[in-house]
Amino acid sequence: MTLTILFAASEANWHSYAAPLQSAMSEAGLDATLTRDAAPQDVDYIIYAPTSPLQDFSPYSRCKAVLSLWAGVERIVTNPTLTQPLCRMVDPALSEGMMEWVVGHSLRHHLGMDRHIVNPGRVWDPACPPLARERPVAMLGMGALGTACARALAALNFPVTGWSRSPKSIDGIPCLHGDAGLAQALSTAQIVVTLLPKTAETENILNARTLALLPLGAVILNPGRGALIDDGALLAALDAGRIGHATLDVFRTEPLPLDHPYWSHPRVTVTPHIAADTRAPSASRVIAENIRRAEAGEPLLHRVDRQRGY
Amino acid sequence: MTLTILFAASEANWHSYAAPLQSAMSEAGLDATLTRDAAPQDVDYIIYAPTSPLQDFSPYSRCKAVLSLWAGVERIVTNPTLTQPLCRMVDPALSEGMMEWVVGHSLRHHLGMDRHIVNPGRVWDPACPPLARERPVAMLGMGALGTACARALAALNFPVTGWSRSPKSIDGIPCLHGDAGLAQALSTAQIVVTLLPKTAETENILNARTLALLPLGAVILNPGRGALIDDGALLAALDAGRIGHATLDVFRTEPLPLDHPYWSHPRVTVTPHIAADTRAPSASRVIAENIRRAEAGEPLLHRVDRQRGY
Repeated sequence: MTLTILFAASEANWHSYAAPLQSAMSEAGLDATLTRDAAPQDVDYIIYAPTSPLQDFSPYSRCKAVLSLWAGVERIVTNPTLTQPLCRMVDPALSEGMMEWVVGHSLRHHLGMDRHIVNPGRVWDPACPPLARERPVAMLGMGALGTACARALAALNFPVTGWSRSPKSIDGIPCLHGDAGLAQALSTAQIVVTLLPKTAETENILNARTLALLPLGAVILNPGRGALIDDGALLAALDAGRIGHATLDVFRTEPLPLDHPYWSHPRVTVTPHIAADTRAPSASRVIAENIRRAEAGEPLLHRVDRQRGY
Repeated sequence: MTLTILFAASEANWHSYAAPLQSAMSEAGLDATLTRDAAPQDVDYIIYAPTSPLQDFSPYSRCKAVLSLWAGVERIVTNPTLTQPLCRMVDPALSEGMMEWVVGHSLRHHLGMDRHIVNPGRVWDPACPPLARERPVAMLGMGALGTACARALAALNFPVTGWSRSPKSIDGIPCLHGDAGLAQALSTAQIVVTLLPKTAETENILNARTLALLPLGAVILNPGRGALIDDGALLAALDAGRIGHATLDVFRTEPLPLDHPYWSHPRVTVTPHIAADTRAPSASRVIAENIRRAEAGEPLLHRVDRQRGY
């Protein structure tokens, strides 16, 4: 029997995904029709992004899973009509793109590149930066993305400490957890990367109290979620020079409003939510594999735990 | 018998090296006196940098080796008075620093960071860069430094092709050689890293003819030697927009003269010879190990082949 797959995302997503999804599903041996318009009671699976107008999942009574195109599911996980299994996107390309952004900006700050990129005074100062092995990094969030970034930084000799809310054991990366672990991880970190999901517990995890735990001049990289940072507290710490720089890819409002103080702050770099983008070909294979699994009665990949929120 | 080790380098070098060399030599079990002033006929080893006034090695008749503090030996290898064995510095810290500079600037260009670092128009353009796996890199020079950099870039998924004058086989990195191999390596490279020694054969290896082989918009990173690049040809290719950017760490004259066109060119970044600096503690251990080897009759590490010039 042919499966009915509802594509509920933006027009732009449809243009990127229609062809790669069709080929990924046929490669996975699925007999499926991909559509943007189907009677709710006929839909077997929903491919979803919050840019879709679909908000009420209750009429989709036979739907076996909602497959998110986005890694972050905070805009859908609390929807009370969503009773179907929900899966996050864990795209291998997304993890690669994230790793490149995090390693690139870590090295940029580590090497002090900005003063060479913009050097109108033609200053020739051959003072060498320390080696990466002398530059401790704290990775807040040790999920798939955080772990990939931590490993890539450790391979370049950065001493990386991972932190997550609950205990984790990751080969080769010392991991801390809980409030005491957070204080310990921050106390020596010259670079802090925030790659946590947005939940009630992680919102404003970098705030006046936790920012004050960092060594003078520490650098913040936030490719995770805008709400992980208390913006006012960060701006105050940057103004005071206690935080050396913040490179931010995600914001509470996107695009970042033109009058936001981050745009003009000399210690802030704004990148336009590019740290990790889902790539249609690899993401389509992840979705097709999950539909194949559901049809075969195998467990879904990257299924969201509603209680944890991710 | 106590060895007499002549330290022939700059005053600044002496301040950095005196203590680390003493401890490295005593750790290596050597009975040695480190001095900046000795009768030539009493000297057992010379630790050397071209910043020293010492140019005539002929009176050092009992000297068993000249141990360079620098990785590049082109300013000493052609000295006709130098008949003693000559060793280059291959400092593990130097290799790490070089790798960090090369990977950092590769990622900077790959991610298009400059347009976010300097963005007075507050442009929010979320177009994603390609993945590193879609960005071919050519590494010209596959010695200790080039190989370390090639491996680090390959670990971040960049497709790296190595090139050297003579055939090499390096695990995991496809290597080309000779003129035909150079043309092949350059034909697809979006990033070219020049990490060759300066010899008669490598001088101006990037010139009008070879630069024209590169794809439109390719980026040049030169942390090797200034003379590897024909400056006039590079400036012409940058002016024409055929080369997208050049990030240069080494120059024919250093510090780079204030009126040099590289300083003001919008497609050039100057870094002040910081890609790799010898670090006194690790370099001192390399030197002590070579003296230990010479005293034990073991082969010297990193001995220069006078004919090849490195």
